[in-house]
Amino acid sequence: MEASAHGGPPLLRQINSAHVVAALRGAGPLSLSDLAARTGLSRPTVGQVVDQLTTAGLLAWAEPGQDGQGPRSGRPARLVRFRAEAAYVVGIDIGRHKALVTVADLAGTVVARRREDASGASSSADLLAVLRTAARGALAEAGIRRADVASVAAGTPGLVDWPRGAVMLAPGLPGWKIELARELRRSFRCPVQVENDANLAALAERRHGLARDAHTLVFIYWGERVGAGVLIGDRLHRGAANAAGEIGFLALDPGTTAEPDQLGRGPFERMVGAEAIVEVGREAATRHGGVLAGLGLDGPGLDGPDPRGAGAEAVFAAAAHGDPAAVEAVHTIAARFARGLAPVLLVLDPDLVVIGAGVSRAGSALLAAITDSVGPLTLVPPRLELSRLGDEAVALGAVELALADAETRLLPAPGLPG
Amino acid sequence: MEASAHGGPPLLRQINSAHVVAALRGAGPLSLSDLAARTGLSRPTVGQVVDQLTTAGLLAWAEPGQDGQGPRSGRPARLVRFRAEAAYVVGIDIGRHKALVTVADLAGTVVARRREDASGASSSADLLAVLRTAARGALAEAGIRRADVASVAAGTPGLVDWPRGAVMLAPGLPGWKIELARELRRSFRCPVQVENDANLAALAERRHGLARDAHTLVFIYWGERVGAGVLIGDRLHRGAANAAGEIGFLALDPGTTAEPDQLGRGPFERMVGAEAIVEVGREAATRHGGVLAGLGLDGPGLDGPDPRGAGAEAVFAAAAHGDPAAVEAVHTIAARFARGLAPVLLVLDPDLVVIGAGVSRAGSALLAAITDSVGPLTLVPPRLELSRLGDEAVALGAVELALADAETRLLPAPGLPG
Repeated sequence: MEASAHGGPPLLRQINSAHVVAALRGAGPLSLSDLAARTGLSRPTVGQVVDQLTTAGLLAWAEPGQDGQGPRSGRPARLVRFRAEAAYVVGIDIGRHKALVTVADLAGTVVARRREDASGASSSADLLAVLRTAARGALAEAGIRRADVASVAAGTPGLVDWPRGAVMLAPGLPGWKIELARELRRSFRCPVQVENDANLAALAERRHGLARDAHTLVFIYWGERVGAGVLIGDRLHRGAANAAGEIGFLALDPGTTAEPDQLGRGPFERMVGAEAIVEVGREAATRHGGVLAGLGLDGPGLDGPDPRGAGAEAVFAAAAHGDPAAVEAVHTIAARFARGLAPVLLVLDPDLVVIGAGVSRAGSALLAAITDSVGPLTLVPPRLELSRLGDEAVALGAVELALADAETRLLPAPGLPG
Repeated sequence: MEASAHGGPPLLRQINSAHVVAALRGAGPLSLSDLAARTGLSRPTVGQVVDQLTTAGLLAWAEPGQDGQGPRSGRPARLVRFRAEAAYVVGIDIGRHKALVTVADLAGTVVARRREDASGASSSADLLAVLRTAARGALAEAGIRRADVASVAAGTPGLVDWPRGAVMLAPGLPGWKIELARELRRSFRCPVQVENDANLAALAERRHGLARDAHTLVFIYWGERVGAGVLIGDRLHRGAANAAGEIGFLALDPGTTAEPDQLGRGPFERMVGAEAIVEVGREAATRHGGVLAGLGLDGPGLDGPDPRGAGAEAVFAAAAHGDPAAVEAVHTIAARFARGLAPVLLVLDPDLVVIGAGVSRAGSALLAAITDSVGPLTLVPPRLELSRLGDEAVALGAVELALADAETRLLPAPGLPG
């Protein structure tokens, strides 16, 4: 749909603006004629929209030659470009071990990231202080002021009251039942969204990762904690109480319950989380010997540096080198994981399951073992992948959420004079 | 959005037509002024749309007094009404025990239904013959010809290739791996859709039943077979291979697999289906005595008449009368069911779970026992209800699917002269 030359209804103006911005973000500087061709809008409408967006600061006329082609024969057409630097967004990943703050421009290009170790934090006040340090550092690295930030989104473990942004239940983070969005609004003078970390990672996989074409995507966050984010079409499936995907609380064995242990972990987390991987590895090493026996497996690892010693990653590394005890341990863990994955597959029948967080670095042997184990437990063999976004996934997903918010607000709003 | 007086783009014309039809279906005969007020369209646009739809046969001018109010002072405004009788749709429920064919007008009002016993069918040809008998009977009862049928939808157990309408896997119905839509198109000269039965029941609950306001609805079909239909917003969640909701194949006990038994039943169906209910009841009666012991529990019941004797329904009936063995059996079944329900809740966090098919007649004691058992297995207590649509749910859902198809095709199409 296209606005007529005399302006058209405000909603159409905004839709046309969004088309123009999307075309310029995707293609770099374009002439007005090229913009008209790419958007399907008329040349006069494009001229009008570009004028509005230039006034609003979202577009700029490019310097001659800025398209990398230099002047050609005849008078070169003027080119217009998207001003990705017109504003910035902040994506945050806050968890038990780290605060990761990412700054991106309006094109989604990351311009700064700062990680602070949060292992020492023993209260929500401590954790917020670590987060604020990371945010200050990231903004300084980006060379921008707080006023340049148009939107903020943060990912956290636990159940998040959407859209209020309060953490309702975060069993792995004692004291973390806080009004996180409100706290963050004290640091940033812009809209703040808070979302479950696995949900954000699913968004990142849709944008950057393996799931660009998957209609139904399940992202499984698998480190010390285990949870899932579910993306159906372009919408996060949050559930009635924002509790969809809480598979860490699957009580698979008869007689067990979803009750968290004293560390706040659910039964499936206790069965397959980093601590369980270490324990299974240690048991196998006790029986078989091999490199694992010599490592003094101790800390769970995976989600952050662990002072207690080699952790779950050592088990996967030893398995990759063919250590028999480690290979056996990987198969044991894969078989346990498959028992929790199977119900997810039977309920949702997803196009793709991406395994992320610490276990994403486990390597293809784990993936093959899970595929073998889950096959007999479901009707349709699943497509399974390990995330390639590493521990950036949550922060990148937060950037996506913040960008979506910034876009709706920065484009000329319906009802305002264009 | 509204078409201008000279017609407007075809898409707007169709949207305006849909608004007018929806207003008339909801409210009965209306004057053009009332129609304009209810749709937000201008009086000239309404006049134009009504002319088009009258020509197309979807609207008619009502006889004076047909609104039940009779002539008032002054010249009464002419009233226009929706012609629900302009065409009909057919909704079909085909399963191991029955073929149920429902005929409804364009307002969704059921005008005929015919049920034929299919217990004797031993091949897909037999079953199709029973279905054709039921269809002939239903059309005769409705007094309409095949040419009056604008759209047909059918629900069947098993995995259905959507939108092709082929049954890919129907473990409970030997030989039922057929091109069902193609077979039905030999009987009806109109579009035919085929869908999984639990999915259709979910649609019926959204339209007629308990789930009108639920964003995420899980309908659990629970009789001899067990499966789920998942409705998220206004869309059925079918899954990548149309296998979403196949919870009858949950292999909950360590060491078991999803492999169907020789009757095609999955492990969760064997654990809680009608046959299991009878067996649990018989065992409890052997220990406790009571009325169940005297009933000679034999057939599974629930989904249809069973020549082998009293079935699962007898267990629920005896429990409702306080028979201790039956009460114990209901608790045992509820505890088993809760183990399969809990993963559904943790993955989807639905607003509402409706238990339908045969077990919907089990009564509130079963519901209370399931609620007690599932609480400790999940994070958020679910809202659980028994369906009140009885065994009509699948056919009513099929009517919904057929109506949606008929509407999109009967309204003046974009691009055609209005």
